Amino acid sequence: MNKETLSKTSKLIKPHVHKTAVLSSQLLNNIVGAELFFKCENFQKMGAFKMRGATNAIMQLSEAQLEKGVVTHSSGNFAQAVSLAAKSLDVKAYIVMPENAPQVKKNAVLGYGGNITECKPTVEARQNAANDIVEEKGATFIHPSNNLNVIIGNSTAAIELLEDYNNLDYIITPVGGGGLIAGTALAAQYFGGKCEVIGAEPKEADDAYRSLLSGKIESNSTTNTIADGLRTELGDVNFPIIKQQVKQIIRVEETEIVAAMQLIYQRLKIVVEPSSATALAAIIKQKHQFLNKKIGVILSGGNVDLTQLPFGKY
Amino acid sequence: MNKETLSKTSKLIKPHVHKTAVLSSQLLNNIVGAELFFKCENFQKMGAFKMRGATNAIMQLSEAQLEKGVVTHSSGNFAQAVSLAAKSLDVKAYIVMPENAPQVKKNAVLGYGGNITECKPTVEARQNAANDIVEEKGATFIHPSNNLNVIIGNSTAAIELLEDYNNLDYIITPVGGGGLIAGTALAAQYFGGKCEVIGAEPKEADDAYRSLLSGKIESNSTTNTIADGLRTELGDVNFPIIKQQVKQIIRVEETEIVAAMQLIYQRLKIVVEPSSATALAAIIKQKHQFLNKKIGVILSGGNVDLTQLPFGKY
Repeated sequence: MNKETLSKTSKLIKPHVHKTAVLSSQLLNNIVGAELFFKCENFQKMGAFKMRGATNAIMQLSEAQLEKGVVTHSSGNFAQAVSLAAKSLDVKAYIVMPENAPQVKKNAVLGYGGNITECKPTVEARQNAANDIVEEKGATFIHPSNNLNVIIGNSTAAIELLEDYNNLDYIITPVGGGGLIAGTALAAQYFGGKCEVIGAEPKEADDAYRSLLSGKIESNSTTNTIADGLRTELGDVNFPIIKQQVKQIIRVEETEIVAAMQLIYQRLKIVVEPSSATALAAIIKQKHQFLNKKIGVILSGGNVDLTQLPFGKY
Repeated sequence: MNKETLSKTSKLIKPHVHKTAVLSSQLLNNIVGAELFFKCENFQKMGAFKMRGATNAIMQLSEAQLEKGVVTHSSGNFAQAVSLAAKSLDVKAYIVMPENAPQVKKNAVLGYGGNITECKPTVEARQNAANDIVEEKGATFIHPSNNLNVIIGNSTAAIELLEDYNNLDYIITPVGGGGLIAGTALAAQYFGGKCEVIGAEPKEADDAYRSLLSGKIESNSTTNTIADGLRTELGDVNFPIIKQQVKQIIRVEETEIVAAMQLIYQRLKIVVEPSSATALAAIIKQKHQFLNKKIGVILSGGNVDLTQLPFGKY
């Protein structure tokens, strides 16, 4: 891993992803007493940063691999990302989804041209179903977060941010499976100067916080959080990067996530999913730490069920 | 009125307003079979295009007038716009609001430094209250939509859009009190070449549609529309401009407004108020008319009660 690998990746995937906008709000800056720069991956193709990692992971495959297609298991944004990235690269995408996934998510995958295989809603069942497709079709498995090319692809969001704002003190990202924060950590390491990367995690699914404390990958016994993108756990590819580069993970309560989400809707006038709001919630919670700092905030995505918005309910 | 007046206004108010972003979506273009350019006045200061007209109307006053302050009556965006514009120009703002206006709206005005006078919720009561302030304080009354300097200020949104996209076939705006569409019509007349301006109006408050048909200002007997910014009626200053420049107003149903609003949230990932969505609803409804055209869409504002979003309820 070096700076050149990251630069090359940025150039490679550029034609297939959006360079997303960076927004600011004087009012939000006043609330936290710092300068915030929101990197709007909710504006990314298919609505989330996952498009970056999926695109890079597919583009790194050989001709022979591309011919046989790719497979992943996900009920969320990565399923859509692989479907759309594969479509735009003219590659076949097999998506393993739990049979109880909402129809709206299945439709999104189908809309982007993915081929769905349904399975029982357990970790074993989805891994087995994916393995079966790898064996039967010869397709290449791409893990949503624990895959180095996915991580490197994800790094390009922070690289773009650091190109535009080269004097950030911090970048804050949500932490779910670890693919975004690991990519962001690599970006900061090679392009960020003194910039430090901090994670934001729901207290209700704080495996990464505990993993950083114990030094080994910890699990969640329950994941009762509104931030549905952050219920997953770290993996052996991304954890070493996180352990080396990330010094702090801030845990936030559910009410703090919803309050931050509401501020983003009200003040930035943009639609984000709850996972994205954890980063602002963490800054608000620890604002004494961030006073007068320049902080990049990765808003990870905007795919939310509009009929289930939490405003006024918490 | 001439081109120079509009150009001067653009320059004059520039330091006090945002040049707002223009967004596009391939998916929305595919749905309507046209190219859409969304001018995001929801990103404007205080969250709506009204900031432009309020700023210009105040900046056109004499030193003597400025010293005595300004007054308006509004329970919506114009109240906030006058409060904020007055604050940033160091002028006193008196805002007449109906006593039953939601506290959240009163708080927004107070937050921007406006001085609220409450009145009974009738047209007469608010006009009387405003007149009283004019007499007592010597403040200058600024009507939210039926004031030429407000209209000229509003024109700057479309001027910015036409500067960036000089080959638009149409610009569509919502029609409420007529101040936005009249300003947009002036912008198109002097900067738009062949660009035509079309209005979008809820069928439940279609006074402008009927006014254009009859040639005189018509009233609404009821205004039972979710597009709360569009319940007001045209005035004698803006109607002559509209009558001369606007050839068509498209009426849309409530369900069409909500469906368009949902598309904007889902696909553009931005927060707009229902009034803004009427413009996209009109394009979708009449899409045969707009096939393969380049269309500017003014998204008028983004101040919406997040606990009252209509998704899944229509």
